[in-house]
Amino acid sequence: MVVNKLMEFFVNELSDQQFDALAGGLTFDQNGLIPAIAQQYDTGEVLMMAWMNRDALAATLQEGRAVFWSRSRDALWRKGETSGQTQELKELRWDCDNDTILLMVNQTGVACHTGRRSCFFNALRGGQIETISEIEISPDKLYGK
Amino acid sequence: MVVNKLMEFFVNELSDQQFDALAGGLTFDQNGLIPAIAQQYDTGEVLMMAWMNRDALAATLQEGRAVFWSRSRDALWRKGETSGQTQELKELRWDCDNDTILLMVNQTGVACHTGRRSCFFNALRGGQIETISEIEISPDKLYGK
Repeated sequence: MVVNKLMEFFVNELSDQQFDALAGGLTFDQNGLIPAIAQQYDTGEVLMMAWMNRDALAATLQEGRAVFWSRSRDALWRKGETSGQTQELKELRWDCDNDTILLMVNQTGVACHTGRRSCFFNALRGGQIETISEIEISPDKLYGK
Repeated sequence: MVVNKLMEFFVNELSDQQFDALAGGLTFDQNGLIPAIAQQYDTGEVLMMAWMNRDALAATLQEGRAVFWSRSRDALWRKGETSGQTQELKELRWDCDNDTILLMVNQTGVACHTGRRSCFFNALRGGQIETISEIEISPDKLYGK
């Protein structure tokens, strides 16, 4: 297990030059941000969408887990830092226009701050707005209140 | 078949009041846009990410297919209008923060203008940038050049 962990980190370890080439090929918006979708690597569930700046992308690759940029806190947001619900990075992908990232991750527990597995729990069904997934862990428990 | 088609449209048909409640609950950014992820409803493939304004959302629901806002053309973009590679809307979902849409769609052919099924065909593997999916239809054929 320890060997596997080390190998995974090695895969994600890039030289500064390699990281510059990768980040330089991506289009960050006027605020220096790029949208990043997190998808559960084996089931295909779309878990959430958040934003990354260049530092968040670097931290994601260095640490092998999803790190976003929090627009509300104006700071790096290590997903799961408070709740323990981390996203292990399985693979970094990006699109044809180089302006959206797709993180293939292994989600520990739940992705959503409401305690649901995925943040996409609102749906329009039969002309009505419905909540389509259940709370799996109470937010009080997640955030130790 | 005709009956099924009519029923689907009925499901997606909202009164003006219902649409106002739905759109009013979503957060559009300073440019009046909201990101919309398109996911193949049965396989879970993330196909693409694009943007919608309020009119694009209304058209998507009215027409039962993905309609985006093209930031480069500054116009409504009926996905597949030129290429025939349309995305039938199966379900509209959105996230906990009401600021990202997830379209569950049935993609005809390919989603990407390069002729690949998904736009997310770039991946970092073993420290190298790799193209992880093949061109299924030549862009020349898609766009009738």
